[in-house]
Amino acid sequence: MTEQQKKILAIKIGGTEGVDFSRICENAARLHAAGERLVLIHGGSAEANALGTSLGLPPRFITSPSGHVSRYTDSQTMDVFIMAVNGTVNTRLVAGLQEKGINAIGLSGLDGHLIRASRKEAIQSVENGKRRLIRDDYSGKIQSVAVSLLHTLLDAGLVPVIAPIALGQNGEPLNVDADRAAAAVAGALAADTLILLTGVPGLMKKFPDPTTLIKNIDRKDLEQMQTYAEGRMKKKSLAAGEAMEQGVRNVLIADGGAEAPIDQALSGNCTWIR
Amino acid sequence: MTEQQKKILAIKIGGTEGVDFSRICENAARLHAAGERLVLIHGGSAEANALGTSLGLPPRFITSPSGHVSRYTDSQTMDVFIMAVNGTVNTRLVAGLQEKGINAIGLSGLDGHLIRASRKEAIQSVENGKRRLIRDDYSGKIQSVAVSLLHTLLDAGLVPVIAPIALGQNGEPLNVDADRAAAAVAGALAADTLILLTGVPGLMKKFPDPTTLIKNIDRKDLEQMQTYAEGRMKKKSLAAGEAMEQGVRNVLIADGGAEAPIDQALSGNCTWIR
Repeated sequence: MTEQQKKILAIKIGGTEGVDFSRICENAARLHAAGERLVLIHGGSAEANALGTSLGLPPRFITSPSGHVSRYTDSQTMDVFIMAVNGTVNTRLVAGLQEKGINAIGLSGLDGHLIRASRKEAIQSVENGKRRLIRDDYSGKIQSVAVSLLHTLLDAGLVPVIAPIALGQNGEPLNVDADRAAAAVAGALAADTLILLTGVPGLMKKFPDPTTLIKNIDRKDLEQMQTYAEGRMKKKSLAAGEAMEQGVRNVLIADGGAEAPIDQALSGNCTWIR
Repeated sequence: MTEQQKKILAIKIGGTEGVDFSRICENAARLHAAGERLVLIHGGSAEANALGTSLGLPPRFITSPSGHVSRYTDSQTMDVFIMAVNGTVNTRLVAGLQEKGINAIGLSGLDGHLIRASRKEAIQSVENGKRRLIRDDYSGKIQSVAVSLLHTLLDAGLVPVIAPIALGQNGEPLNVDADRAAAAVAGALAADTLILLTGVPGLMKKFPDPTTLIKNIDRKDLEQMQTYAEGRMKKKSLAAGEAMEQGVRNVLIADGGAEAPIDQALSGNCTWIR
């Protein structure tokens, strides 16, 4: 079996409270040392919100007519997002992994055309029941992933750590949803498993009651399970579906704050979609 | 001649006022299209100062007993430096190059152990004529450059864009001087030429009078020329010496705001050290 044929484990590290970077880095280092081929993708929403607030640019959100919530990223907010996500969070993760002995390499979607997206020129937003069109938003819909670059890096023994910023058609940075970016990367690499580490133990029938955790979901039931998804969880189940459409066999939504978050997820303490 | 034996042109892009990123990206793109093998290293001091000031952490500086001025980087300032330099400046340059058709890849010294440094545990500082020891500074002395990673990327057709942040011995990010980082990278790659693009036309006998520009310096006279160097220019001539010790044949100190800054420098409108 050549290196490129080895199974890839893609891990998305949420940027929300309750996600423990240090535990994730430690767990990832153990798996890497055992020969796992890892690719990490991260968010950074909490960090971007905090930095924006410090700079007098508190976060704003867009609710789509179908109920999906996403960040409203005008040009100034994009600058804040780049600092927080590609600056702080990406560097912190790379440093945390290097400290544990993983030779990480931080990337955004701009680097080597890693993630190309098309800018959404006009976005429908629902505010107080009324629809309006937003035209100054710098977010994008993912078009492609430069998978050969990732294989070059993996073959060199590096662990890619990817920030959810994509390259627009005019070279401009675009904000992309981190869960969907993770799905696109995992899909392009034909990863065996994608783990979405977040601040909760998985999809719950009655959020936030952890005793109502849905442990197993058959892929064909995923759409129907959307009814249980609240807020961010909607994006996660959407991302799970996208990853599976591209050939990812398992998508796990799991607690990023657990003792050994990756092991915990892989032992079944999560929402396991297959 | 194999790709690896092709001459490399290393360009350091200053982070000070008067340096025009857009012109540099355009000029770099023309050279890249003509087959030049480029590596870019950048600073970000103006950006870091502005961000720190916005966040209530204005910049502080350390003056060494020999008169070199460097940034005082305590832990909070390091966080600001990462956001401004590895976040804003690096991403802006990568986006600017992508826009012009260069397939750039942004890196810091943490990525793939690119630049390793040892933290200066205690730094002598001179304040109002008195010496004091600073112990909470996160800056480092460069120890090594992972040149094989750069060759891997160059061979894949990518142009590395490097932020002056190094990997400390415990995995921690360290601030390193961008001119000296550029010298270390150019030296490790055995670059033919290193161009230091800054806000002034070069080393002047009577700063800031541009008619006193010193156009040619023989390497053996470099130390003596230090007498003309003011402030940041001291670091540049120090960096020039370090680069040449490692085999770089030409170091050019040139105006980063000129019409075509790289062409201008290579045509001799600069301080050319050989």
